[in-house]
Amino acid sequence: MSANPESDGFRDFPGPDVPRASRRLSPSSVEGRLLRRLLSRVGDPPVEFVLWNGEHLGPIAGAAVVTIRVKDRGTLFTLLRDPPVQFGDAYSAGRVEIEGDLVQFMHLVYHAAARAERHRSVAHRMTDWLRRPRRNTLAGSRDNIHRHYDIGNEFYALWLGETMAYTCAYYPTHEATLEQAQIAKMDHVCRKLRLKPGESVVEAGCGWGTLALHMASRYGVRVRAFNISREQVAFARARAKQQGLDGQVEFVEDDYRNISGRYDVFVSVGMLEHVGLENYAELGCIVRRSLTARGRGLIHSIGRNRPSPLHPWIERRIFPGAYAPSLSEMMQIFEPCDLSVLDVENIRLHYALTLRHWLQRYHAAEERVRRMFDETFVRMWRLYLAGSIAAFETGTLQLFQVLFTTQENNDIPLTRQHLYSA
Amino acid sequence: MSANPESDGFRDFPGPDVPRASRRLSPSSVEGRLLRRLLSRVGDPPVEFVLWNGEHLGPIAGAAVVTIRVKDRGTLFTLLRDPPVQFGDAYSAGRVEIEGDLVQFMHLVYHAAARAERHRSVAHRMTDWLRRPRRNTLAGSRDNIHRHYDIGNEFYALWLGETMAYTCAYYPTHEATLEQAQIAKMDHVCRKLRLKPGESVVEAGCGWGTLALHMASRYGVRVRAFNISREQVAFARARAKQQGLDGQVEFVEDDYRNISGRYDVFVSVGMLEHVGLENYAELGCIVRRSLTARGRGLIHSIGRNRPSPLHPWIERRIFPGAYAPSLSEMMQIFEPCDLSVLDVENIRLHYALTLRHWLQRYHAAEERVRRMFDETFVRMWRLYLAGSIAAFETGTLQLFQVLFTTQENNDIPLTRQHLYSA
Repeated sequence: MSANPESDGFRDFPGPDVPRASRRLSPSSVEGRLLRRLLSRVGDPPVEFVLWNGEHLGPIAGAAVVTIRVKDRGTLFTLLRDPPVQFGDAYSAGRVEIEGDLVQFMHLVYHAAARAERHRSVAHRMTDWLRRPRRNTLAGSRDNIHRHYDIGNEFYALWLGETMAYTCAYYPTHEATLEQAQIAKMDHVCRKLRLKPGESVVEAGCGWGTLALHMASRYGVRVRAFNISREQVAFARARAKQQGLDGQVEFVEDDYRNISGRYDVFVSVGMLEHVGLENYAELGCIVRRSLTARGRGLIHSIGRNRPSPLHPWIERRIFPGAYAPSLSEMMQIFEPCDLSVLDVENIRLHYALTLRHWLQRYHAAEERVRRMFDETFVRMWRLYLAGSIAAFETGTLQLFQVLFTTQENNDIPLTRQHLYSA
Repeated sequence: MSANPESDGFRDFPGPDVPRASRRLSPSSVEGRLLRRLLSRVGDPPVEFVLWNGEHLGPIAGAAVVTIRVKDRGTLFTLLRDPPVQFGDAYSAGRVEIEGDLVQFMHLVYHAAARAERHRSVAHRMTDWLRRPRRNTLAGSRDNIHRHYDIGNEFYALWLGETMAYTCAYYPTHEATLEQAQIAKMDHVCRKLRLKPGESVVEAGCGWGTLALHMASRYGVRVRAFNISREQVAFARARAKQQGLDGQVEFVEDDYRNISGRYDVFVSVGMLEHVGLENYAELGCIVRRSLTARGRGLIHSIGRNRPSPLHPWIERRIFPGAYAPSLSEMMQIFEPCDLSVLDVENIRLHYALTLRHWLQRYHAAEERVRRMFDETFVRMWRLYLAGSIAAFETGTLQLFQVLFTTQENNDIPLTRQHLYSA
């Protein structure tokens, strides 16, 4: 994937100014052996370590692409205990620094993890099980969502851009801006759903209301949009009023499990990650009972090529309770209720482009983020965004848009040509 | 789905000439009670029965849409024993006649079956298990395929048309002819795969070689195409020679499990139905090991909205060992081997159009089929084609095209626009 013109060259450190390490670490020393064990556990990425005392150790074979500076002995021991989680925490706390491109470093980490994955022990698989995401009960979901989405609309506004859309955009070309791509994403979704004026739409998990307002203003539909994030709903309602759409779009501060009524269309963009596998069958029933006989629906979600838990640091520090399903897992929504899948599109590289735009803006706004929160928060979110770019670019994560309808609906376009006409 | 201009009006009987039944059957008679039980077991379709003695019995509520004539008491008893299988056999043997449109009758049957499905007992689910398709071992597959595909190329040529493509076509418009739609299907598949001149393609299950020759002649690729049907391979080789493509396309009379080598592209159109669920993971491994790092693949198969056995009469009389998977089942091919699904398109209504064209041509050729085989064969295949139209039109069956690539391949077009440019 070629880098986007807006977004290349983000570096954690401006390399040349940092003093180079001086002394080669003996591989037989305590630290040397610890580092070798750490590298082997994470799949031997081509990195060099530089320790607190200036000693350094390179990869077993080949040249190092990125340098990792470890600030003290305690951090080294901590990293060994649980590398994926402890690295994230140590980076956030500034006890580990990456010299070189942070996204490139995360690429190395994901590639190495894929190699290590092929040689995993039963003990590791047990760890996966222990790390299964926390359950999303009604109260649990509210808490999980509050912890991510209610940290301040102003913070998100710094880097999401004016659309305030916090989901994968759709780039008609590599040159599209973030705003163009977010609008193109909404139109792509609306075309897939073949929205017609006067139709009714229910949206599950509506963020700051961007898609709901877009559907209402551009496609003339009536929308009921559900969200359990108080801050987002307040923001969305203010926007609706400001745009004169409050008669056409209703924002409901409630859980998707409490959706009632029948609608022509069900849509959910970026909520499934928070639903939890154990609730997919119930979600399918809710979708089915909410649709008219000719109803259509679309679910847009981060996914996986095969079932695996979310990165444990991300699940712990960024998205509590989140899970990215494989397609077979997503089918647990549709199959039990005789919903018929019409179209699945995987647009993972679009999420990498979106995240590159976000990271660039985030980087430019870091000073303001530091004033809102603290240095640890700034670094934590930087790592999350950079790591996510790498996850989508290495194919560790996917982005699926699944279009579906009721089993009995034959009012289906013969081809998908209508999505691609001007 | 509106009927295709080429294909409407096919009737088993020219209704007006058939004498009407005269006497209403008493619902409390033995036959009356048997018929009520039969109707209730199959979901109470709106049909009227006319018995051998002229007595007739209509549906519990509403008017009958189709009339079923039962020739003798023995047939009535047989039907009750196992309606889905016995109806097919009785129709084939001429012991049951359908007065009215056969496709419409099969619509009623499938709609009623869907209703009955919602109230199924454990005993019925046990029957499903007993009816699971026979296993597709290497020898078993050869036998299963022989029984369907080796019954004579001349027979198939009567109704498949000049392309000799025995899989779902792709209709750019409802007005396309069968030939146009079969060519459009091949181009749609080739565009999805982004074939480039000089690339190598392996095809699993190549029928009479239509797609292999099309890819070679129109897209300049080299093709190795596997098939275990001796008659089909002989036909395909003769065609390749005739078209001067025998240096570019190699037809191999062997099982897909014996594919060796590496290719840029894997393609399989209409073979998965014969692979058997128990072999999906192995198929995935074969696909993965056959692809280069940037390899792509496409599997086109009849499917289901949820896991269910094939219609038992079809599995027994027409397609031994066949199974139509749900998408979650198809994912058993891709997920264990880290293949990445890029695009799923459900084109079930295209199969209904294709089958309507086939049935119309079959109908016109019935006299010749009768000379090749016998009356039972003629009726059996008529029922199979008519029933398949109804299965796709009622959403009982789906048709999935799944495009995929290796997890690490980032050479993916941003959009699907290229499929829809002229």
